Amino acid sequence: MIKVALDAMGGDNAPAEIIEGAVAAVRERKDILVMVVGREKEINAELKKHTYPKEQIQVVPASEVIATSEHPVKAIREKKDSSMVVGLKLVKTGEADAFVSAGNSGAILAGGQIIIGRIKGVERPPFGALIPTEQGISLLLDCGASVDPRPSMLVQFAQMGSIYMEHVIGIEKPSVGIVNIGAEEEKGNALVQETFPLLKACRNIHFVGSVEARDIPKGGTDVVVCDAFTGNVVLKMYEGTAAMLYGVMKKGLMSSLRSKLGALLILPALKKTLKDFDASRYGGAPMLGLKGLVVKTHGSAKRTEIHNSILQCQTFKEQKINEKIKECLEAEEQENQE
Amino acid sequence: MIKVALDAMGGDNAPAEIIEGAVAAVRERKDILVMVVGREKEINAELKKHTYPKEQIQVVPASEVIATSEHPVKAIREKKDSSMVVGLKLVKTGEADAFVSAGNSGAILAGGQIIIGRIKGVERPPFGALIPTEQGISLLLDCGASVDPRPSMLVQFAQMGSIYMEHVIGIEKPSVGIVNIGAEEEKGNALVQETFPLLKACRNIHFVGSVEARDIPKGGTDVVVCDAFTGNVVLKMYEGTAAMLYGVMKKGLMSSLRSKLGALLILPALKKTLKDFDASRYGGAPMLGLKGLVVKTHGSAKRTEIHNSILQCQTFKEQKINEKIKECLEAEEQENQE
Repeated sequence: MIKVALDAMGGDNAPAEIIEGAVAAVRERKDILVMVVGREKEINAELKKHTYPKEQIQVVPASEVIATSEHPVKAIREKKDSSMVVGLKLVKTGEADAFVSAGNSGAILAGGQIIIGRIKGVERPPFGALIPTEQGISLLLDCGASVDPRPSMLVQFAQMGSIYMEHVIGIEKPSVGIVNIGAEEEKGNALVQETFPLLKACRNIHFVGSVEARDIPKGGTDVVVCDAFTGNVVLKMYEGTAAMLYGVMKKGLMSSLRSKLGALLILPALKKTLKDFDASRYGGAPMLGLKGLVVKTHGSAKRTEIHNSILQCQTFKEQKINEKIKECLEAEEQENQE
Repeated sequence: MIKVALDAMGGDNAPAEIIEGAVAAVRERKDILVMVVGREKEINAELKKHTYPKEQIQVVPASEVIATSEHPVKAIREKKDSSMVVGLKLVKTGEADAFVSAGNSGAILAGGQIIIGRIKGVERPPFGALIPTEQGISLLLDCGASVDPRPSMLVQFAQMGSIYMEHVIGIEKPSVGIVNIGAEEEKGNALVQETFPLLKACRNIHFVGSVEARDIPKGGTDVVVCDAFTGNVVLKMYEGTAAMLYGVMKKGLMSSLRSKLGALLILPALKKTLKDFDASRYGGAPMLGLKGLVVKTHGSAKRTEIHNSILQCQTFKEQKINEKIKECLEAEEQENQE
């Protein structure tokens, strides 16, 4: 049985969509217990709307809510009875295996480190985002935690990302690339130039070299490593360009009777194709390197993303990802000492 | 009369498309002289295919070619008779007002600084790219020169970019933003955090704060400032995402008879709409801050982009952009001393 603490109060669609995601998850699998954390009254009002195996959802009361605009560290320190702090503590004490939240990213990041703590040897836990590509999916990390990382941190991101892609997503010998502005080894800013030889020398990953931003949407590299500033730019350009193009095309399609008719005909095929590019299929962004699992979903996450994020936690636990990360870093450490 | 030196040998489509661009430009305007630099025989063979006012195109022989794969500084120093070195020298000596090339970006960057030289006070000349957005165009800079700039350099990019957008593109009081991972002033990596207050304090620009990558395709900010690593990621994600989505949609549209029929109906409207997003409409990326104008086009540039890049040079000269940049930096310098 896996126990997932779920932040019922975080994100734009809380609590309704969050609860729906929990209900969908326990309906699909018998071996999941979801501990829904937040304001009891609101949660129960939502739960009442659904039929589900009652013994698989447990409500854990928390009276406070951390808003998106709040200062992360301050909020974690002061709002002791917030859904986020209470949920993270459930992981800390071992009552839950994982914590899923659509709330304030900074607070999740701070709370994960302050309350749950890092695996020994991990310098900084990164956020990994699973992004849909033409050829499948890639894990982009860091995309939210360390904006000015040291080269050694990027190497750890590569190692943790490889373990995740191999054991949670099931990709054998995942390839690792570093975001760069050209294919040649001597290209890049100081961080990339310093990190490149370290990745090349790292024996427990399958490093394939630079990945130009142009090729990220095409896919083909399983683990794509970068600092969190670059990771944010990659993710947001992906979303922003896609959203803009859809908007522009929609406008274009409505410009004549002929194209309107055409739009009606293409809609079903287009919808089906674009569904493959729906990021919510893969659940949220795991924060790797903590002594427990923390998954951050989009602030705008709806039922499907919450549902899939909960299921993702199960594989994570079954595959003992944290133990594997610990072993991997210890092996590397030992090799470096020899 | 404006004199533009044109690198006939640079880029994927040289010399045919380059020459076609030159022919189109002199056919459109009587006040342009294009000095086509490169291998005489090849150039003349192409020129023969077209009708145009002979007195407006002059062939300047250069026997060598700098390839895309060559080491920039080495190539500039060693290939004295390359189309690039000869073309840049024409600007240096004042025989030409501008140099346009689709060739090796690194060599253009190195050659511009070594041969033509910087305007006094300019720390580093950036490449600015005009990118089409939902609301018009934005100038993104730096997108190719300084991957690890100092904060003061970003301030100069903002100043030079503002002058360009106001006087070449004709936008009154252009707005300036810095690429960031959130809207708040305290967000960002060390570079952005150090640069933000400097931009805020800069009196000769209209600074509007942070621009999240998600909002770049939407547009609305005239000058978008960042380091060249980030600029490259923004540009390449833009191109890569768009290319990937077109590919995916095309495949989707061909998936059923119904959608194939629809595709035929929507094609004209879609083409018209997407034309607005064709970057080649705006010409190439100017390198700002040199004692002459250097414009880099895409390596894949075709006739239209070359044509528009040549026309762009005219406005640049007419508006005395270099003089304006010099005055602007001197005024700022003086203010800082007071």
